[in-house]
Amino acid sequence: MSIEILPLPVAGEIETGADLAALVLDAGPPLLDGDVVVLTHKAVSKAEGRIVDLSDVVPSPLALEFAEDGGDPRQIEVVLRESKRVVRRRGSLLICETHHGFICASAGVDRSNTPGDDLVVLLPEDPDASAARIREALRARTGRTVGVIVADTMGRPLRNGILGTAIGVSGVEALRSLQGDIDPNGYELRTTQVAIADELAAAADLVFGKLERVPAALIRGYAGRGDGTACELIRSADRDLFI
Amino acid sequence: MSIEILPLPVAGEIETGADLAALVLDAGPPLLDGDVVVLTHKAVSKAEGRIVDLSDVVPSPLALEFAEDGGDPRQIEVVLRESKRVVRRRGSLLICETHHGFICASAGVDRSNTPGDDLVVLLPEDPDASAARIREALRARTGRTVGVIVADTMGRPLRNGILGTAIGVSGVEALRSLQGDIDPNGYELRTTQVAIADELAAAADLVFGKLERVPAALIRGYAGRGDGTACELIRSADRDLFI
Repeated sequence: MSIEILPLPVAGEIETGADLAALVLDAGPPLLDGDVVVLTHKAVSKAEGRIVDLSDVVPSPLALEFAEDGGDPRQIEVVLRESKRVVRRRGSLLICETHHGFICASAGVDRSNTPGDDLVVLLPEDPDASAARIREALRARTGRTVGVIVADTMGRPLRNGILGTAIGVSGVEALRSLQGDIDPNGYELRTTQVAIADELAAAADLVFGKLERVPAALIRGYAGRGDGTACELIRSADRDLFI
Repeated sequence: MSIEILPLPVAGEIETGADLAALVLDAGPPLLDGDVVVLTHKAVSKAEGRIVDLSDVVPSPLALEFAEDGGDPRQIEVVLRESKRVVRRRGSLLICETHHGFICASAGVDRSNTPGDDLVVLLPEDPDASAARIREALRARTGRTVGVIVADTMGRPLRNGILGTAIGVSGVEALRSLQGDIDPNGYELRTTQVAIADELAAAADLVFGKLERVPAALIRGYAGRGDGTACELIRSADRDLFI
Protein backbone atom coordinates (compact mmCIF):
# COMPACT_ATOMS: atom_id res chain seq x y z
CA MET A 1 0.00 0.00 0.00
CA SER A 2 2.68 2.45 -1.06
CA ILE A 3 1.87 5.54 -3.08
CA GLU A 4 3.55 6.34 -6.36
CA ILE A 5 3.80 9.77 -7.98
CA LEU A 6 4.55 9.68 -11.70
CA PRO A 7 5.41 12.80 -13.68
CA LEU A 8 3.39 13.24 -16.87
CA PRO A 9 5.64 15.28 -19.16
CA VAL A 10 4.32 17.04 -22.24
CA ALA A 11 6.38 18.10 -25.23
CA GLY A 12 5.92 21.68 -26.35
CA GLU A 13 3.65 24.47 -25.24
CA ILE A 14 0.02 23.79 -24.21
CA GLU A 15 -2.19 25.73 -26.61
CA THR A 16 -5.65 27.17 -26.11
CA GLY A 17 -8.15 24.40 -26.75
CA ALA A 18 -5.62 21.64 -25.96
CA ASP A 19 -7.18 18.32 -25.03
CA LEU A 20 -5.72 17.84 -21.55
CA ALA A 21 -7.29 14.41 -21.07
CA ALA A 22 -5.53 13.22 -24.22
CA LEU A 23 -2.22 14.74 -23.10
CA VAL A 24 -2.53 12.98 -19.72
CA LEU A 25 -3.32 9.65 -21.35
CA ASP A 26 -0.46 9.99 -23.85
CA ALA A 27 2.07 10.88 -21.16
CA GLY A 28 1.37 8.17 -18.62
CA PRO A 29 0.48 4.52 -18.13
CA PRO A 30 -3.13 3.31 -18.58
CA LEU A 31 -5.29 4.73 -15.79
CA LEU A 32 -6.62 2.62 -12.96
CA ASP A 33 -9.73 3.24 -10.87
CA GLY A 34 -8.75 5.32 -7.85
CA ASP A 35 -5.83 7.09 -9.53
CA VAL A 36 -5.60 10.82 -8.89
CA VAL A 37 -4.45 13.08 -11.73
CA VAL A 38 -3.01 16.41 -10.58
CA LEU A 39 -2.60 19.16 -13.18
CA THR A 40 -0.87 22.48 -12.75
CA HIS A 41 -3.31 25.36 -12.97
CA LYS A 42 -1.11 26.80 -15.67
CA ALA A 43 -1.71 23.83 -17.97
CA VAL A 44 -5.44 24.12 -17.34
CA SER A 45 -5.50 27.89 -17.78
CA LYS A 46 -3.56 27.75 -21.03
CA ALA A 47 -5.88 25.06 -22.41
CA GLU A 48 -8.85 27.21 -21.40
CA GLY A 49 -7.38 30.32 -23.01
CA ARG A 50 -7.03 32.16 -19.71
CA ILE A 51 -4.11 34.18 -21.06
CA VAL A 52 -3.93 37.94 -21.34
CA ASP A 53 -1.62 39.85 -23.66
CA LEU A 54 -0.43 42.82 -21.62
CA SER A 55 0.02 44.90 -24.76
CA ASP A 56 -3.81 44.99 -24.96
CA VAL A 57 -4.22 46.21 -21.36
CA VAL A 58 -4.70 49.87 -20.42
CA PRO A 59 -3.78 50.35 -16.75
CA SER A 60 -6.15 52.27 -14.51
CA PRO A 61 -4.89 55.19 -12.37
CA LEU A 62 -4.85 52.84 -9.35
CA ALA A 63 -2.69 50.30 -11.21
CA LEU A 64 -0.33 53.11 -12.24
CA GLU A 65 -0.07 54.24 -8.61
CA PHE A 66 0.64 50.71 -7.33
CA ALA A 67 3.33 50.27 -9.99
CA GLU A 68 5.36 53.29 -8.87
CA ASP A 69 8.15 51.08 -7.47
CA GLY A 70 8.89 49.68 -10.91
CA GLY A 71 6.15 47.08 -11.30
CA ASP A 72 4.36 46.65 -14.61
CA PRO A 73 1.14 48.69 -14.35
CA ARG A 74 -0.53 46.56 -17.03
CA GLN A 75 0.12 43.39 -15.05
CA ILE A 76 -1.17 45.07 -11.88
CA GLU A 77 -4.29 46.09 -13.78
CA VAL A 78 -4.90 42.42 -14.64
CA VAL A 79 -4.29 41.45 -11.00
CA LEU A 80 -6.87 44.00 -9.83
CA ARG A 81 -9.42 42.72 -12.35
CA GLU A 82 -8.94 39.17 -11.03
CA SER A 83 -9.42 40.31 -7.41
CA LYS A 84 -12.39 40.71 -5.14
CA ARG A 85 -10.20 42.78 -2.80
CA VAL A 86 -6.59 43.62 -2.09
CA VAL A 87 -5.71 42.06 1.28
CA ARG A 88 -2.23 43.57 1.66
CA ARG A 89 0.15 45.56 -0.49
CA ARG A 90 3.85 46.34 -0.38
CA GLY A 91 4.65 48.51 -3.36
CA SER A 92 3.63 46.62 -6.47
CA LEU A 93 3.40 43.30 -4.61
CA LEU A 94 -0.25 42.58 -3.91
CA ILE A 95 -1.82 39.86 -1.80
CA CYS A 96 -5.36 39.56 -3.14
CA GLU A 97 -8.55 37.67 -2.57
CA THR A 98 -9.53 36.29 -5.96
CA HIS A 99 -13.12 36.12 -7.16
CA HIS A 100 -13.01 32.41 -6.19
CA GLY A 101 -12.04 33.31 -2.60
CA PHE A 102 -8.38 32.24 -2.70
CA ILE A 103 -5.98 34.57 -0.93
CA CYS A 104 -2.71 34.59 -2.83
CA ALA A 105 0.02 36.75 -4.29
CA SER A 106 -0.95 38.67 -7.45
CA ALA A 107 -4.36 36.96 -7.50
CA GLY A 108 -2.60 33.99 -9.07
CA VAL A 109 -1.66 36.00 -12.18
CA ASP A 110 1.67 34.65 -13.37
CA ARG A 111 4.17 35.73 -15.97
CA SER A 112 6.65 32.84 -15.77
CA ASN A 113 6.34 29.83 -18.03
CA THR A 114 4.28 31.76 -20.55
CA PRO A 115 5.07 31.55 -24.24
CA GLY A 116 5.77 35.27 -24.62
CA ASP A 117 7.20 38.17 -22.65
CA ASP A 118 3.96 40.14 -22.56
CA LEU A 119 1.66 37.23 -21.77
CA VAL A 120 0.30 36.47 -18.31
CA VAL A 121 -1.67 33.41 -17.25
CA LEU A 122 -4.73 33.80 -15.01
CA LEU A 123 -6.22 31.18 -12.72
CA PRO A 124 -8.98 29.08 -14.33
CA GLU A 125 -12.35 30.80 -14.04
CA ASP A 126 -13.86 27.88 -12.08
CA PRO A 127 -11.12 25.36 -11.19
CA ASP A 128 -13.57 22.88 -9.59
CA ALA A 129 -15.51 22.82 -12.85
CA SER A 130 -12.25 22.44 -14.80
CA ALA A 131 -11.33 19.43 -12.66
CA ALA A 132 -14.80 17.92 -13.18
CA ARG A 133 -14.60 18.38 -16.96
CA ILE A 134 -11.17 16.74 -17.20
CA ARG A 135 -12.38 13.91 -14.96
CA GLU A 136 -15.38 13.31 -17.21
CA ALA A 137 -13.19 13.37 -20.31
CA LEU A 138 -10.85 10.78 -18.75
CA ARG A 139 -13.82 8.60 -17.79
CA ALA A 140 -15.31 8.88 -21.28
CA ARG A 141 -12.07 7.69 -22.90
CA THR A 142 -11.00 5.01 -20.44
CA GLY A 143 -14.05 3.99 -18.41
CA ARG A 144 -11.94 4.60 -15.31
CA THR A 145 -13.11 6.53 -12.27
CA VAL A 146 -10.29 8.79 -11.19
CA GLY A 147 -9.91 11.91 -9.09
CA VAL A 148 -8.66 15.15 -10.62
CA ILE A 149 -6.99 18.04 -8.81
CA VAL A 150 -5.98 21.40 -10.27
CA ALA A 151 -3.00 22.69 -8.30
CA ASP A 152 -1.22 25.98 -7.88
CA THR A 153 1.89 26.74 -5.84
CA MET A 154 0.85 29.28 -3.24
CA GLY A 155 2.50 31.16 -0.43
CA ARG A 156 0.92 31.08 2.99
CA PRO A 157 0.99 33.10 6.19
CA LEU A 158 3.47 32.30 8.98
CA ARG A 159 5.76 30.07 6.94
CA ASN A 160 8.27 30.68 4.17
CA GLY A 161 8.05 29.09 0.76
CA ILE A 162 5.32 28.28 -1.69
CA LEU A 163 3.59 24.94 -1.62
CA GLY A 164 1.50 22.87 -4.03
CA THR A 165 -2.12 23.66 -3.13
CA ALA A 166 -5.45 22.39 -4.48
CA ILE A 167 -7.55 25.04 -6.23
CA GLY A 168 -9.84 22.63 -8.10
CA VAL A 169 -11.03 19.19 -6.99
CA SER A 170 -13.28 16.54 -8.51
CA GLY A 171 -13.83 12.91 -7.59
CA VAL A 172 -11.51 12.90 -4.58
CA GLU A 173 -12.08 14.18 -1.09
CA ALA A 174 -10.86 17.69 -0.30
CA LEU A 175 -11.16 17.21 3.48
CA ARG A 176 -11.17 13.91 5.32
CA SER A 177 -12.94 14.10 8.65
CA LEU A 178 -11.59 12.01 11.51
CA GLN A 179 -14.47 13.01 13.79
CA GLY A 180 -15.66 10.16 15.91
CA ASP A 181 -12.93 7.79 14.78
CA ILE A 182 -11.24 5.80 17.50
CA ASP A 183 -7.45 5.65 17.73
CA PRO A 184 -5.64 2.37 18.60
CA ASN A 185 -5.77 3.25 22.31
CA GLY A 186 -9.54 3.71 22.32
CA TYR A 187 -9.28 7.48 22.56
CA GLU A 188 -11.94 9.17 20.43
CA LEU A 189 -10.38 11.71 18.11
CA ARG A 190 -12.04 15.10 18.26
CA THR A 191 -13.14 16.77 15.06
CA THR A 192 -10.09 16.81 12.91
CA GLN A 193 -10.17 17.40 9.21
CA VAL A 194 -7.18 16.55 7.08
CA ALA A 195 -6.73 18.62 3.93
CA ILE A 196 -6.20 15.58 1.71
CA ALA A 197 -6.47 17.47 -1.59
CA ASP A 198 -3.77 19.91 -0.47
CA GLU A 199 -1.54 17.02 0.58
CA LEU A 200 -2.03 15.41 -2.84
CA ALA A 201 -1.25 18.72 -4.56
CA ALA A 202 1.89 19.19 -2.44
CA ALA A 203 3.02 15.64 -3.24
CA ALA A 204 2.50 16.20 -6.97
CA ASP A 205 4.47 19.44 -6.85
CA LEU A 206 7.55 17.39 -5.93
CA VAL A 207 7.60 16.05 -9.50
CA PHE A 208 6.40 19.16 -11.32
CA GLY A 209 9.55 21.18 -10.97
CA LYS A 210 9.28 24.69 -12.23
CA LEU A 211 11.65 24.34 -15.11
CA GLU A 212 10.82 21.16 -16.96
CA ARG A 213 7.68 20.61 -18.93
CA VAL A 214 5.80 18.49 -16.42
CA PRO A 215 2.32 19.97 -16.22
CA ALA A 216 0.66 16.92 -14.65
CA ALA A 217 1.31 14.01 -12.31
CA LEU A 218 -0.38 10.72 -11.62
CA ILE A 219 -0.78 9.64 -7.99
CA ARG A 220 -1.38 5.92 -7.71
CA GLY A 221 -2.10 3.91 -4.58
CA TYR A 222 -3.72 6.59 -2.47
CA ALA A 223 -6.73 4.89 -0.94
CA GLY A 224 -9.18 7.64 -1.77
CA ARG A 225 -12.77 7.79 -0.76
CA GLY A 226 -15.50 10.34 -1.18
CA ASP A 227 -15.71 13.46 -3.26
CA GLY A 228 -15.06 17.11 -2.61
CA THR A 229 -14.45 20.57 -3.99
CA ALA A 230 -11.64 23.05 -3.50
CA CYS A 231 -14.19 25.54 -2.15
CA GLU A 232 -14.40 23.42 1.01
CA LEU A 233 -10.76 24.23 1.66
CA ILE A 234 -11.33 27.97 1.82
CA ARG A 235 -11.86 29.30 5.34
CA SER A 236 -13.54 32.67 5.55
CA ALA A 237 -11.61 35.25 7.57
CA ASP A 238 -14.42 35.65 10.11
CA ARG A 239 -14.13 31.96 11.04
CA ASP A 240 -10.35 32.00 11.24
CA LEU A 241 -8.82 31.73 14.68
CA PHE A 242 -5.26 31.99 13.38
CA ILE A 243 -5.32 35.57 12.15
CA MET B 1 11.95 9.48 -12.13
CA SER B 2 8.76 8.75 -10.22
CA ILE B 3 8.55 9.15 -6.46
CA GLU B 4 7.43 6.37 -4.16
CA ILE B 5 6.08 6.80 -0.64
CA LEU B 6 6.26 3.65 1.48
CA PRO B 7 4.58 3.37 4.87
CA LEU B 8 6.85 2.09 7.64
CA PRO B 9 4.47 0.44 10.12
CA VAL B 10 5.50 -0.40 13.66
CA ALA B 11 3.89 -2.99 15.89
CA GLY B 12 2.99 -1.83 19.38
CA GLU B 13 3.52 1.42 21.24
CA ILE B 14 6.77 3.41 20.87
CA GLU B 15 8.36 3.56 24.33
CA THR B 16 10.68 6.16 25.81
CA GLY B 17 14.20 5.37 24.66
CA ALA B 18 13.02 3.47 21.59
CA ASP B 19 15.63 3.16 18.86
CA LEU B 20 13.82 4.87 15.99
CA ALA B 21 16.57 4.19 13.47
CA ALA B 22 16.22 0.47 14.20
CA LEU B 23 12.43 0.64 13.90
CA VAL B 24 12.74 2.41 10.54
CA LEU B 25 15.23 -0.15 9.24
CA ASP B 26 13.12 -3.09 10.45
CA ALA B 27 9.93 -1.71 8.88
CA GLY B 28 11.18 -0.89 5.41
CA PRO B 29 13.43 -1.99 2.56
CA PRO B 30 17.20 -1.36 2.72
CA LEU B 31 17.88 2.37 2.49
CA LEU B 32 19.38 4.00 -0.59
CA ASP B 33 21.38 7.22 -0.76
CA GLY B 34 18.96 10.09 -1.33
CA ASP B 35 16.00 8.46 0.42
CA VAL B 36 14.03 10.72 2.75
CA VAL B 37 12.67 9.24 5.97
CA VAL B 38 9.72 11.16 7.42
CA LEU B 39 8.72 10.44 11.03
CA THR B 40 5.67 11.70 12.86
CA HIS B 41 6.60 14.04 15.68
CA LYS B 42 4.63 11.78 17.97
CA ALA B 43 6.95 8.83 17.35
CA VAL B 44 9.95 11.08 17.96
CA SER B 45 8.46 12.69 21.07
CA LYS B 46 7.52 9.33 22.58
CA ALA B 47 11.02 7.95 21.97
CA GLU B 48 12.46 11.09 23.57
CA GLY B 49 10.18 10.81 26.58
CA ARG B 50 8.36 14.05 25.79
CA ILE B 51 5.21 12.79 27.51
CA VAL B 52 3.47 14.41 30.46
CA ASP B 53 1.13 12.64 32.85
CA LEU B 54 -1.63 15.14 33.52
CA SER B 55 -2.26 13.66 36.97
CA ASP B 56 1.09 15.22 37.97
CA VAL B 57 0.14 18.69 36.71
CA VAL B 58 -1.22 21.46 38.95
CA PRO B 59 -3.01 24.03 36.80
CA SER B 60 -2.27 27.72 37.31
CA PRO B 61 -5.09 30.23 37.88
CA LEU B 62 -4.75 31.27 34.21
CA ALA B 63 -5.15 27.68 33.02
CA LEU B 64 -8.23 27.31 35.25
CA GLU B 65 -9.72 30.48 33.75
CA PHE B 66 -9.05 29.34 30.16
CA ALA B 67 -10.66 25.96 30.94
CA GLU B 68 -13.99 27.43 32.04
CA ASP B 69 -15.76 26.15 28.90
CA GLY B 70 -15.07 22.55 29.88
CA GLY B 71 -11.45 22.16 28.78
CA ASP B 72 -8.99 20.24 30.92
CA PRO B 73 -7.11 22.86 32.98
CA ARG B 74 -4.16 20.50 33.46
CA GLN B 75 -3.76 20.10 29.70
CA ILE B 76 -4.05 23.87 29.22
CA GLU B 77 -1.36 24.31 31.85
CA VAL B 78 0.95 22.10 29.80
CA VAL B 79 0.06 24.06 26.64
CA LEU B 80 0.96 27.33 28.38
CA ARG B 81 4.29 25.92 29.54
CA GLU B 82 5.12 24.90 25.96
CA SER B 83 4.27 28.37 24.64
CA LYS B 84 6.21 31.56 24.14
CA ARG B 85 2.90 33.42 23.73
CA VAL B 86 -0.79 32.80 23.14
CA VAL B 87 -1.59 34.14 19.67
CA ARG B 88 -5.38 33.67 19.80
CA ARG B 89 -7.87 32.06 22.12
CA ARG B 90 -11.46 30.90 21.83
CA GLY B 91 -12.48 29.42 25.16
CA SER B 92 -10.08 26.60 25.94
CA LEU B 93 -8.84 26.41 22.35
CA LEU B 94 -5.49 28.17 22.15
CA ILE B 95 -3.39 29.04 19.12
CA CYS B 96 0.12 29.42 20.50
CA GLU B 97 3.61 30.29 19.43
CA THR B 98 5.80 27.50 20.75
CA HIS B 99 9.28 28.07 22.13
CA HIS B 100 10.59 26.88 18.75
CA GLY B 101 8.57 29.57 16.95
CA PHE B 102 5.86 27.37 15.42
CA ILE B 103 2.36 28.83 15.53
CA CYS B 104 -0.10 26.00 16.03
CA ALA B 105 -3.12 24.83 17.99
CA SER B 106 -2.41 23.86 21.61
CA ALA B 107 1.33 24.44 21.11
CA GLY B 108 1.39 20.99 19.51
CA VAL B 109 0.38 19.28 22.76
CA ASP B 110 -1.69 16.28 21.78
CA ARG B 111 -3.80 13.80 23.68
CA SER B 112 -4.78 11.42 20.88
CA ASN B 113 -2.71 8.33 20.11
CA THR B 114 -1.18 8.31 23.59
CA PRO B 115 -1.00 5.10 25.59
CA GLY B 116 -3.17 6.39 28.43
CA ASP B 117 -6.09 8.72 29.04
CA ASP B 118 -4.12 11.18 31.15
CA LEU B 119 -1.03 11.31 28.98
CA VAL B 120 -0.24 14.10 26.54
CA VAL B 121 2.58 14.21 24.01
CA LEU B 122 4.61 17.39 23.56
CA LEU B 123 6.58 18.42 20.48
CA PRO B 124 10.24 17.37 20.52
CA GLU B 125 12.39 19.92 22.33
CA ASP B 126 14.55 20.56 19.27
CA PRO B 127 13.07 18.77 16.24
CA ASP B 128 15.93 19.77 13.91
CA ALA B 129 18.36 18.14 16.34
CA SER B 130 16.09 15.07 16.58
CA ALA B 131 16.13 14.76 12.80
CA ALA B 132 19.93 15.11 12.74
CA ARG B 133 20.38 12.43 15.42
CA ILE B 134 18.13 9.94 13.60
CA ARG B 135 19.93 10.71 10.36
CA GLU B 136 23.30 10.03 11.96
CA ALA B 137 22.02 6.78 13.49
CA LEU B 138 20.77 5.64 10.07
CA ARG B 139 24.10 6.55 8.48
CA ALA B 140 26.02 4.72 11.20
CA ARG B 141 24.05 1.50 10.64
CA THR B 142 23.75 1.54 6.87
CA GLY B 143 26.43 3.83 5.49
CA ARG B 144 23.65 5.55 3.53
CA THR B 145 23.20 9.29 3.30
CA VAL B 146 19.50 10.02 3.71
CA GLY B 147 17.39 13.00 4.62
CA VAL B 148 15.20 12.95 7.73
CA ILE B 149 12.10 15.03 8.38
CA VAL B 150 10.09 15.20 11.59
CA ALA B 151 6.49 16.04 10.67
CA ASP B 152 3.40 17.24 12.48
CA THR B 153 -0.07 17.80 11.09
CA MET B 154 -0.83 21.46 11.57
CA GLY B 155 -3.69 23.78 10.84
CA ARG B 156 -3.00 26.98 8.97
CA PRO B 157 -4.62 30.35 8.42
CA LEU B 158 -7.05 30.96 5.56
CA ARG B 159 -7.64 27.32 4.68
CA ASN B 160 -9.52 24.47 6.34
CA GLY B 161 -7.91 21.22 7.37
CA ILE B 162 -4.63 20.18 8.88
CA LEU B 163 -1.67 19.28 6.72
CA GLY B 164 1.57 17.34 7.14
CA THR B 165 4.18 19.99 7.95
CA ALA B 166 7.94 19.80 8.57
CA ILE B 167 9.01 20.75 12.10
CA GLY B 168 12.45 19.11 11.97
CA VAL B 169 14.74 18.74 8.96
CA SER B 170 18.20 17.24 8.44
CA GLY B 171 20.05 16.32 5.28
CA VAL B 172 17.40 17.55 2.88
CA GLU B 173 16.59 21.05 1.75
CA ALA B 174 13.82 22.90 3.57
CA LEU B 175 13.47 25.59 0.93
CA ARG B 176 14.53 25.31 -2.70
CA SER B 177 15.27 28.64 -4.28
CA LEU B 178 14.37 29.15 -7.91
CA GLN B 179 15.97 32.58 -7.99
CA GLY B 180 17.79 33.25 -11.21
CA ASP B 181 16.65 30.02 -12.85
CA ILE B 182 15.45 30.32 -16.42
CA ASP B 183 12.16 28.78 -17.46
CA PRO B 184 11.81 26.96 -20.84
CA ASN B 185 10.75 30.23 -22.51
CA GLY B 186 13.85 32.09 -21.37
CA TYR B 187 11.94 34.09 -18.76
CA GLU B 188 13.97 34.52 -15.60
CA LEU B 189 11.99 33.37 -12.57
CA ARG B 190 11.96 35.90 -9.77
CA THR B 191 12.90 34.88 -6.27
CA THR B 192 10.66 31.98 -5.53
CA GLN B 193 11.29 29.52 -2.76
CA VAL B 194 9.50 26.22 -2.71
CA ALA B 195 8.89 24.71 0.73
CA ILE B 196 10.22 21.30 -0.26
CA ALA B 197 10.34 19.91 3.29
CA ASP B 198 6.68 20.80 3.81
CA GLU B 199 5.77 19.16 0.51
CA LEU B 200 7.62 16.00 1.57
CA ALA B 201 5.87 16.06 4.97
CA ALA B 202 2.48 16.51 3.30
CA ALA B 203 3.20 13.64 0.91
CA ALA B 204 4.22 11.36 3.80
CA ASP B 205 1.06 12.23 5.71
CA LEU B 206 -0.95 10.54 2.95
CA VAL B 207 0.36 7.18 4.19
CA PHE B 208 0.45 7.91 7.92
CA GLY B 209 -3.26 7.82 8.53
CA LYS B 210 -4.28 8.80 12.00
CA LEU B 211 -5.57 5.42 13.06
CA GLU B 212 -3.06 2.81 11.99
CA ARG B 213 0.35 2.40 13.50
CA VAL B 214 2.35 4.04 10.75
CA PRO B 215 4.72 6.46 12.47
CA ALA B 216 7.15 6.81 9.57
CA ALA B 217 7.34 6.80 5.80
CA LEU B 218 10.10 6.39 3.27
CA ILE B 219 10.15 8.71 0.26
CA ARG B 220 12.23 7.30 -2.56
CA GLY B 221 13.07 8.92 -5.87
CA TYR B 222 12.85 12.56 -4.87
CA ALA B 223 15.90 14.16 -6.45
CA GLY B 224 17.00 16.01 -3.36
CA ARG B 225 19.89 18.39 -3.11
CA GLY B 226 21.25 20.53 -0.33
CA ASP B 227 20.53 20.65 3.36
CA GLY B 228 18.23 22.70 5.53
CA THR B 229 16.50 23.15 8.85
CA ALA B 230 12.86 23.54 9.79
CA CYS B 231 13.70 26.92 11.33
CA GLU B 232 14.15 28.29 7.82
CA LEU B 233 10.47 27.61 7.20
CA ILE B 234 9.29 29.85 10.02
CA ARG B 235 8.42 33.37 8.92
CA SER B 236 8.38 35.98 11.65
CA ALA B 237 5.14 37.92 11.89
CA ASP B 238 6.84 41.25 11.19
CA ARG B 239 8.03 39.96 7.82
CA ASP B 240 4.67 38.48 6.89
CA LEU B 241 2.69 40.26 4.20
CA PHE B 242 -0.24 37.87 4.45
CA ILE B 243 -1.49 38.75 7.92
